[in-house]
Amino acid sequence: MATPIFMAGLPGKMAAETAALVAASDDFELFDIGLSSPVHEGKTIAIGDRKIGLVASDSLAAVALPADTLAVDYTTPDAALDNVRWYVENDVPFVMGTTSFDLDEAKRLVAASGVSAVIAPNMAVPIVLMQAAARWLAAEFPGALAGAELKVVESHQANKRDTSGTAKALVASANGLGVPFPVDDIEKVRDPARQQSEVGVPAEHLAGHAFHRYELSAAAGTVQLVLEHNVLGRRVYAEGTLAALRFLQQRLAAGSRGEVLTMEDVLRG
Amino acid sequence: MATPIFMAGLPGKMAAETAALVAASDDFELFDIGLSSPVHEGKTIAIGDRKIGLVASDSLAAVALPADTLAVDYTTPDAALDNVRWYVENDVPFVMGTTSFDLDEAKRLVAASGVSAVIAPNMAVPIVLMQAAARWLAAEFPGALAGAELKVVESHQANKRDTSGTAKALVASANGLGVPFPVDDIEKVRDPARQQSEVGVPAEHLAGHAFHRYELSAAAGTVQLVLEHNVLGRRVYAEGTLAALRFLQQRLAAGSRGEVLTMEDVLRG
Repeated sequence: MATPIFMAGLPGKMAAETAALVAASDDFELFDIGLSSPVHEGKTIAIGDRKIGLVASDSLAAVALPADTLAVDYTTPDAALDNVRWYVENDVPFVMGTTSFDLDEAKRLVAASGVSAVIAPNMAVPIVLMQAAARWLAAEFPGALAGAELKVVESHQANKRDTSGTAKALVASANGLGVPFPVDDIEKVRDPARQQSEVGVPAEHLAGHAFHRYELSAAAGTVQLVLEHNVLGRRVYAEGTLAALRFLQQRLAAGSRGEVLTMEDVLRG
Repeated sequence: MATPIFMAGLPGKMAAETAALVAASDDFELFDIGLSSPVHEGKTIAIGDRKIGLVASDSLAAVALPADTLAVDYTTPDAALDNVRWYVENDVPFVMGTTSFDLDEAKRLVAASGVSAVIAPNMAVPIVLMQAAARWLAAEFPGALAGAELKVVESHQANKRDTSGTAKALVASANGLGVPFPVDDIEKVRDPARQQSEVGVPAEHLAGHAFHRYELSAAAGTVQLVLEHNVLGRRVYAEGTLAALRFLQQRLAAGSRGEVLTMEDVLRG
């Protein structure tokens, strides 16, 4: 029996990409109603061979989910916390991919409830591993790279205004390793012309990519350590979301209630 | 008072590079006799403002080292174990950078003795950190990168016959993360023409370099994670050797005896 997945955030790009993987999987199936914003209320979208009806949060009270449904939330910062309240009150365990809202309050709500949830600002497995490794290094070997110099360049779609949270996290780890680098020195590339000519982003991915380059120079310039990650589109995040759903299901089967899980928990398995 | 350093392996490149840093440091000074092979017995070499007389191991019995001397060993696989016996018998704590000999026996000799030693096949701090992080990831998140694909290219000076131990260690960690990559698939570049044109090794470093590139592809080719380290010459290993000497001295001051230390211990501080 495939587990029903209630998608919140349709027809947004991340929710749609995840919904497509859900529809193509053997162990999950899309619930035929999805959560959207008022402007999409009453519309229907096709994903795989399913038609999903969109409702806004005001109409949620009329939605009855099957008992084993899991939710996936890729909505907006102003909607996410209300959604968490609804999942918790209606006993729907969930995977939360929405960022830039009050995560601490979301965690408190889950911990005080009977549902468990994966709350993860980034579900791209290779990126999560890279960040985890950098944080471990900084904790384990504080100051070990004293004297080294860092350069960080990150390129994202032009409508991403803020500096990448991944880049900031890696810089914090570099600081812990003894490399004094202010977050403001991270070079943000948002100009599509430069992204194509200098960073090498393919034209078709200018609207959705994450190309990062971390360059460490040590030992009087005789050592260069370069870490680069190039993410095209949103597929890797959608794959990570399904991994999170599977892990959540496994935890629930083992009796987990009121547990806040991270992507690192998912990867520890 | 500067601590005397007994250099073993002069006039070899690694011993000479380390000796130059020792001579330039404030806290160490070169002992005026160094260990060499029979072919150099009786010669003198100039390092910094010191002249170091070279003796072969048969003449070691006549060498009286000051009580607080530390040794650094960059010799050869066939000489290293005899050297360890001499250090141990003559109460000389040491840093061992020689590789490809019976390290387990060396460790046993140290553990059964009154001297402590740093025994480290690679003293390049950034590389040691990279290997440690990869090993931690594999232990902590086994199988987390299942489905990803790996490509490894390493370029070293033409006279290095074997595959890089660092590359093999990283591949083992990738295997642990669920990426099935046989060590034989590591691409060794030893042709100086290709090293210059394809790998980008500067002409003056063809005779001593370590350029590695690890390329991981995941999520149906939408994610590329690239790790590159380019080491020019031997400076970074010499710097790591001095860090090892300082840590050894600190451990000895704290009462350490018969302790085998690794480069990770050095970096934990």
